[in-house]
Amino acid sequence: MYISEVKVELSTRHFVENHILLQEDESLEDLQLKGLVIIQKKKGFRFGVDAVLLSHFSSIRKGARVMDLCTGTGIIPVLLAGKTEASEILGLEIQKDFASMAKRTITINSLQDRVSIIEGDLKDHKLLKGQGLFDAVTVNPPYKKKHSGIRNPEDTLAIARHEVALELEDVIMASKILLKDGGRLFMVHRPERIADILELMRKHKIEPKRIQTVHPTFGKAPNIVLVEGQKYGGEFLKWAEPIYVYSDNGGYSDQIREIYGDDRR
Amino acid sequence: MYISEVKVELSTRHFVENHILLQEDESLEDLQLKGLVIIQKKKGFRFGVDAVLLSHFSSIRKGARVMDLCTGTGIIPVLLAGKTEASEILGLEIQKDFASMAKRTITINSLQDRVSIIEGDLKDHKLLKGQGLFDAVTVNPPYKKKHSGIRNPEDTLAIARHEVALELEDVIMASKILLKDGGRLFMVHRPERIADILELMRKHKIEPKRIQTVHPTFGKAPNIVLVEGQKYGGEFLKWAEPIYVYSDNGGYSDQIREIYGDDRR
Repeated sequence: MYISEVKVELSTRHFVENHILLQEDESLEDLQLKGLVIIQKKKGFRFGVDAVLLSHFSSIRKGARVMDLCTGTGIIPVLLAGKTEASEILGLEIQKDFASMAKRTITINSLQDRVSIIEGDLKDHKLLKGQGLFDAVTVNPPYKKKHSGIRNPEDTLAIARHEVALELEDVIMASKILLKDGGRLFMVHRPERIADILELMRKHKIEPKRIQTVHPTFGKAPNIVLVEGQKYGGEFLKWAEPIYVYSDNGGYSDQIREIYGDDRR
Repeated sequence: MYISEVKVELSTRHFVENHILLQEDESLEDLQLKGLVIIQKKKGFRFGVDAVLLSHFSSIRKGARVMDLCTGTGIIPVLLAGKTEASEILGLEIQKDFASMAKRTITINSLQDRVSIIEGDLKDHKLLKGQGLFDAVTVNPPYKKKHSGIRNPEDTLAIARHEVALELEDVIMASKILLKDGGRLFMVHRPERIADILELMRKHKIEPKRIQTVHPTFGKAPNIVLVEGQKYGGEFLKWAEPIYVYSDNGGYSDQIREIYGDDRR
């Protein structure tokens, strides 16, 4: 599911300083949010409902510094730039191709003042410590367990979807380093990983504070889970009302229309 | 919510060996399951939907040995005796009053061959080890955290509802001792304790295998959670389809009618 599959025509604003901003195998898509667009591969990892739900789930205050880990094409920083009054949003991406797309997306959207993309590894703790402290960390990590399913470790799609380059614990350790005391981690993941998520958050002193399950329809088991944790937070966990993606008649539910609608200009 | 509030008349079968089986402040209620009845206090802790959902959630094989911790009035052993082909069901209860009611309930129902009630403390590991190993442990533990809310520690209702006499970790440690390798723990609890439950299960090598949330109605956050764990189980967690207790029109949902209906003779 994509926010929009309407392709936008490249115009002069998409050529900055005479650099080519779009490669042959890439497409530019309209996010229908304050005129923002995103570069994605025509084939390969494309952002989906996870990113939209995570940006909706993340409570970001005015003036906040935000770090998006595993940022990929930079979809979360772009959505948060459009939706929140965060003063500074950084996106960290290990894969050169994705980091390049994300950087060009920031340029096309003229978001350079608020959004930056860093190419690097979240296991590089020295790199993390060099970025200062953050009010919030957002992350849509690779959601399949290492060694689960068939994959080609050279494949960028495999790296984006599987824990090839990093494991969940690396993500949570990085969040711990990046967050200021009391800062919030917002994560979207698969429900079958909930025990891992809660156990590892606790282990690294990020207390789980809010869980929201996302179900394909009423009556179905959840296929997405959103978790908020707070660094050094007190024990008090709240479950939010579930989200149902589709309604009984097969179309998107009112909830999802509202979440997407929130994003429309 | 009670299975039945229809009071049954005491008949001669309710007087065994000339002992009085019902005290003044107690009532006998029809479970509408194979003629089974239960003794409860007229005022005080009464079993509710938790017990019915837990007995429905618990997969008990033919010939299984089952231990119900925090058995209270013995509602879970009685329901499981009626619904499953377990060969032996034990209920452990620390409070003398409840253990007495549970024992008399077993006698009234002529379940002495399959069900026994033990008065004792689940922190008494020597007592636990003396009971042999079990295929399944069921538990509806006190669901409020120690020191949360106002309570009178002398009160039997407080002991049943709060972690006065024991904490969640004691319950999970007891389950670990009681279960055979590969044996299953079935727990009903409050959703806000899910991080505690999953973290403590993992800590004591009871791997979470199945989670089911129970919601008052469609669209509301869950207010009950059911968790199945397996001693020394492999990592694979499945979320079951959620249960909605009430339907939109205010009556019980078809799901709940079916769960209750399963219990009817």
